[in-house]
Amino acid sequence: MAQITIKDVAGRAGVSPATVSRVLNHGPTVAEELRERVLAAVRELGYRPSSQARFLRTRATTLLGLIISDITNPFFTSMVRGAEDAASKAGYSVMLANTDEDLEKEQRYIEVAAAENMAGVILSPASATRTSISLLAERGIPVVTVDRRLQTAKVDRVGVNNVKAAQDAVLRLVDQGCRRIGFIAGPTEVTTAVDRLAGYRHGLRAAGLAYRRELVVRGDYRIEGGRAAAADLLRLKPRPDALFVSNNLMALGAATALREYGLRYPEDITLAVFDDMRWALGLSDAMTLISQPTYEMGRLAVELLLRRVSGEGFPPRHVVLSAVLV
Amino acid sequence: MAQITIKDVAGRAGVSPATVSRVLNHGPTVAEELRERVLAAVRELGYRPSSQARFLRTRATTLLGLIISDITNPFFTSMVRGAEDAASKAGYSVMLANTDEDLEKEQRYIEVAAAENMAGVILSPASATRTSISLLAERGIPVVTVDRRLQTAKVDRVGVNNVKAAQDAVLRLVDQGCRRIGFIAGPTEVTTAVDRLAGYRHGLRAAGLAYRRELVVRGDYRIEGGRAAAADLLRLKPRPDALFVSNNLMALGAATALREYGLRYPEDITLAVFDDMRWALGLSDAMTLISQPTYEMGRLAVELLLRRVSGEGFPPRHVVLSAVLV
Repeated sequence: MAQITIKDVAGRAGVSPATVSRVLNHGPTVAEELRERVLAAVRELGYRPSSQARFLRTRATTLLGLIISDITNPFFTSMVRGAEDAASKAGYSVMLANTDEDLEKEQRYIEVAAAENMAGVILSPASATRTSISLLAERGIPVVTVDRRLQTAKVDRVGVNNVKAAQDAVLRLVDQGCRRIGFIAGPTEVTTAVDRLAGYRHGLRAAGLAYRRELVVRGDYRIEGGRAAAADLLRLKPRPDALFVSNNLMALGAATALREYGLRYPEDITLAVFDDMRWALGLSDAMTLISQPTYEMGRLAVELLLRRVSGEGFPPRHVVLSAVLV
Repeated sequence: MAQITIKDVAGRAGVSPATVSRVLNHGPTVAEELRERVLAAVRELGYRPSSQARFLRTRATTLLGLIISDITNPFFTSMVRGAEDAASKAGYSVMLANTDEDLEKEQRYIEVAAAENMAGVILSPASATRTSISLLAERGIPVVTVDRRLQTAKVDRVGVNNVKAAQDAVLRLVDQGCRRIGFIAGPTEVTTAVDRLAGYRHGLRAAGLAYRRELVVRGDYRIEGGRAAAADLLRLKPRPDALFVSNNLMALGAATALREYGLRYPEDITLAVFDDMRWALGLSDAMTLISQPTYEMGRLAVELLLRRVSGEGFPPRHVVLSAVLV
């Protein structure tokens, strides 16, 4: 029997070959009835798309990968929504992967994105120095990093001015009379954590205050780490007169630790948080919050990525948005 | 020139054909140095996997799709973690898609899962009656629904006893002296919303209280909808003496509305929430919370799905876990 072609399927289903192609290649939606006719014809004839057609389908994928480090963090989920809206407008779909800050998981998802021949990948790397995107680079799949920088490859990036925003928050705490500001830092491998700690130090220097090592405790950007770090700081004698928590989930943990120590804010201790937590803490008046344009970061990252997908060439671009005090 | 085969690539790279296959098919991790040698040989020889090999690769995919309706809801993100841990243990990866309760987006992601030939799909359907998984069924890709039921297909499901848990919460409110219990319901298309409303009615009946239509306001399972619905209920005269909010995000909105009306809980009004919101509201003593085993739901859904993936046949199974009052 001769090779079954797409034309045979089209003839059997009474549709054009283009329609068959659209049905098989998940193109723009096809009327349910037509789709069923096409799929019935495919089954009846035992049609199997040729290697070439499959290759085209794979190349033409309209799938973007978004590899983030913590799906339970609202910072990322808001970014996801921005990314999805921009992708959707351009006819692309977004599949997410959650690495849990785990380099092995991250590499597995990078392999999946490469194997599935995704059109492009947005990545919030688990490590600036150990995350490798070489698998994607080899296949010409463009990458944009978001939130965090990557030092192992020169790629486009969308992030915020972490150093400046952290410095501003310290200066505001000093304005409020604080002199002994405890800082809950993030993981050493993550560039946002490095930048925010640098901002804290710059802020102290600008205010003429000494940097004291015991006032800085490192957390893991998660709730439990924030709770433990806050407890460490609250045990210090004399106690800090302010806590500056460098991400949102650690702030939830720190709020729990404060309750456990019977401390209220702002009455007993002044609080500043990197990230806008009004929705959860319900206490915006009571603390300094650094708000990041998360939705916008997702949107801009996808727009930049799609320019690469369409083949535009330009030097690696770094888009730096403003995080602001609220 | 003869067709380049996997053996040619293996010879050039000085590795076994199995290693080449593992590198190309994102199998278990291969040492970086070996991988680079293989990829260099692939490039130098211009090797392209044959249709048959590609087909096998696609069939052998170890990718599971997890299609959820709201990525900003911690209920789902905790479930995702349970699903990922179970998948990871079995050597599978999980890609997530967020439908935003939008049927068109949901269908697009179902198309992607079908086109990418994913091994299986876990779905929290946007609509019990309008979500269609026929594209997956046609290709023999198994589906497990989680949290919500689907009426358009008979598939495995993992969920909780929504009716009973909601009824128990109403009876606890009645025990606390409440007689005029306002209920913030969810979207009509979603089975959990239907079940929780039924539980509310059963609870009233069991307590000998009349069902009053004006005490039920529908929200959208999102923060803003909860805020608007709570405001509607708080404007009633006489005001309800309790609010029972049927999901977590709406409870955040309701808490904002209470603040806007200058009402404190539990002093001015009694609160019950479907979902454990201690982490955000920090007020477990002050309200009745219904805690769902979200991580466990994700884990069990993946385990059930992987039994189907491995070819096991059994009648559609419904796993119903207990949501409990805390």
